[in-house]
Amino acid sequence: MALSKRITGLTGGGSDGWDVYYKAKEMMDAGEDVAMLTIGEHDIGTDDSILDAMHAATKAGHVGYSMFNGNLNLRETVAERVTARTGVATTPDNVLVVPGGQAGLFAAHHAACDEGDRALYIDPFYATYPGTIRAVGAQDVAVAARPERMFQPAPADIAAAAAEGAKSLLINTPNNPTGAVYGRETLEGIARVCQEHDMWLISDEVYDTQLWEGDHLSPRMLDGMAERTLVIGSLSKSHAMTGSRIGWVVGPEEAISHMGNLSTHTTYGVAGFVQEAACYALAKGDAFEAQVAAPFRRRRDLVLGLLEGQDVVRPIPAQGAMFVMLDVRATGLSGEEFALRLLDRHKVAVMPGESFGRAAAGHVRVALTVADDRLGEALARLVEMASDLAGVAA
Amino acid sequence: MALSKRITGLTGGGSDGWDVYYKAKEMMDAGEDVAMLTIGEHDIGTDDSILDAMHAATKAGHVGYSMFNGNLNLRETVAERVTARTGVATTPDNVLVVPGGQAGLFAAHHAACDEGDRALYIDPFYATYPGTIRAVGAQDVAVAARPERMFQPAPADIAAAAAEGAKSLLINTPNNPTGAVYGRETLEGIARVCQEHDMWLISDEVYDTQLWEGDHLSPRMLDGMAERTLVIGSLSKSHAMTGSRIGWVVGPEEAISHMGNLSTHTTYGVAGFVQEAACYALAKGDAFEAQVAAPFRRRRDLVLGLLEGQDVVRPIPAQGAMFVMLDVRATGLSGEEFALRLLDRHKVAVMPGESFGRAAAGHVRVALTVADDRLGEALARLVEMASDLAGVAA
Ligand SMILES: Cc1ncc(COP(=O)(O)O)c(C=O)c1O
Ligand SMILES: Cc1ncc(COP(=O)(O)O)c(C=O)c1O
Repeated sequence: MALSKRITGLTGGGSDGWDVYYKAKEMMDAGEDVAMLTIGEHDIGTDDSILDAMHAATKAGHVGYSMFNGNLNLRETVAERVTARTGVATTPDNVLVVPGGQAGLFAAHHAACDEGDRALYIDPFYATYPGTIRAVGAQDVAVAARPERMFQPAPADIAAAAAEGAKSLLINTPNNPTGAVYGRETLEGIARVCQEHDMWLISDEVYDTQLWEGDHLSPRMLDGMAERTLVIGSLSKSHAMTGSRIGWVVGPEEAISHMGNLSTHTTYGVAGFVQEAACYALAKGDAFEAQVAAPFRRRRDLVLGLLEGQDVVRPIPAQGAMFVMLDVRATGLSGEEFALRLLDRHKVAVMPGESFGRAAAGHVRVALTVADDRLGEALARLVEMASDLAGVAA
Repeated sequence: MALSKRITGLTGGGSDGWDVYYKAKEMMDAGEDVAMLTIGEHDIGTDDSILDAMHAATKAGHVGYSMFNGNLNLRETVAERVTARTGVATTPDNVLVVPGGQAGLFAAHHAACDEGDRALYIDPFYATYPGTIRAVGAQDVAVAARPERMFQPAPADIAAAAAEGAKSLLINTPNNPTGAVYGRETLEGIARVCQEHDMWLISDEVYDTQLWEGDHLSPRMLDGMAERTLVIGSLSKSHAMTGSRIGWVVGPEEAISHMGNLSTHTTYGVAGFVQEAACYALAKGDAFEAQVAAPFRRRRDLVLGLLEGQDVVRPIPAQGAMFVMLDVRATGLSGEEFALRLLDRHKVAVMPGESFGRAAAGHVRVALTVADDRLGEALARLVEMASDLAGVAA
């Protein structure tokens, strides 16, 4: 039976490099001891107190259909948080609760784009971006952020892509995979382009609690941007709640209201007990979020320290998020070749830059998601292999 | 900012009648004592043992990202269940786990239809159907099932609509809102039309454990249909787990595999602890499902009993599901007028047939979701009002 062109066109066409990941998984399944520096997920689980709050919520009766757009108490909590952190007045009518940041990315693109519309996104990118755009029937158009600019996108490049027409631009700061945090200049340039070309800005801020340098600036705070920005938030990374599938979209009332209608038809809301757990988790406040983020900050410093005094493996000093991107072009290998060899010879799994698009070719991404000593050892092997390849002493 | 035509076109255009529902909610919020016979949700909550299993799963570590297409143990459990109940060999590769039946309906239409394709569905319909079709950019085309046929759709009517071209047909048996259970003849006729017009059959079977007359026949069991049928299942109704948001789609491997890719981009899977709770719930077996269904069977008999010996309010004897549809045309009022008057004068809230499409005009739907004595009293008031209107003694 024939399937829709849209669904069969979801994957493929982009860069690859996921072989390394699947190969590492297979090796692990076969009992081999692989250092897994691939996936953006904490090595700790969700805090017990949050799980207990969820259980209590089930026993208190939050087990029936809940509001399709999110329960009022959670939308209020998110609105207060956003108002406090950005200074932009935000009410529950600006908030849609969704089952995870990914569902927010989908809903935002559905709201912005019709079939065939061009939707821009920045390369390197989080793996689901082009497919999310294609899933709503839009055309995915990549705009490269270059390593020479520390992966800060150039507004002029975005303007050039927008000149051919585009309905939306998707950005992500702090960035996965590069660790870049977009500066004010970058974001003001982006805001200008969005206004000039009448585009929606879809701002993926799921790493907004993981900042190692500078401050997180939400583009919704910039002049004239609240009316055209859809911010994607999630408790996955900030509260180690990846498996609970809970997040939100913040945006103009009218857009949020239509996206609520969409939710009725895509998921019919989010489990009430998960929403209650989310309220509880958010009420734990800043100190808890800093505690969840702390290991990544520490390991980021560890990695940068380990890479000092050599010049073959050049880190992009992560300003945020749970990854460090390493430029391995001095080895003469592609990111994918490098990662495959590292896995085969040293049982260390990292993601090839190519799996995040063309712009990160010749790089590998190290996830800071294993214990410090393990990470240190893995990095030492990585540097040694790179040095051998480049013909220099490690 | 301009929103996509697709998202702004989700609602509206269909029949209405939801005013009654919102008005009833307002009255209740204002402290009035309203008999709520509107919504398809159990008056019991999710069983404590299932909630405890969910909590245990969180503590056992099912709190990280799980497989985007569903964990293998749940897909195995569903495959075994479907094989046992239908005799159609079904493997985990035929099963996609989704966050609720609604998410299954969305994914199935996304897989079947491209932008602008015609997608058929039967009127009267569950409220989200036309919007779900429009959410994937397809054209929603209603085919009426007539009260004279006890709301069994006529294959010839479907064929007539398919003759103009259509990619899919959505059916629902046991049916919400009519309580009809499609017989073999109806389903064989539907199967023939699907084959002749090369259409996908999307079969919503979320009420498959609530059968009061005859047997549930899944059209996937019919000759040549497994390859073109996408069955929507859910634990919402069978296990009183509406709020947990967990269900599945069963279909051909290739379709299921592409729908798994779609899940990566719409929701990124379902919470692992909810999947574990679903495995536990399904393992409770038939007796538990019968126990969850029992009140609806009992109340259905109660309602039919109460309506004997009068001729103004004519029930469609529900063969399944948690509703009874009542023909109130003898009162001279529309379903909506009747329901509004019943709410205003007697504080009994039922759904106007018009809220489920044109074919159920002049009917009201009674949800069997309140305690027996409450239901009995409400029905008595309904009959009295109808008799007054028709000018006969109740
Ligand atoms: C940049 C980015 N956006 C969104 C997501 C999705 O997060 P969630 O778990 O909230 O769906 C991820 C997950 O890795 C991510 O890295
Ligand atoms: C016919 C029908 N299909 C699907 C659904 C959606 O159920 P779920 O809770 O599994 O999304 C409902 C819910 O009322 C329904 O009545």
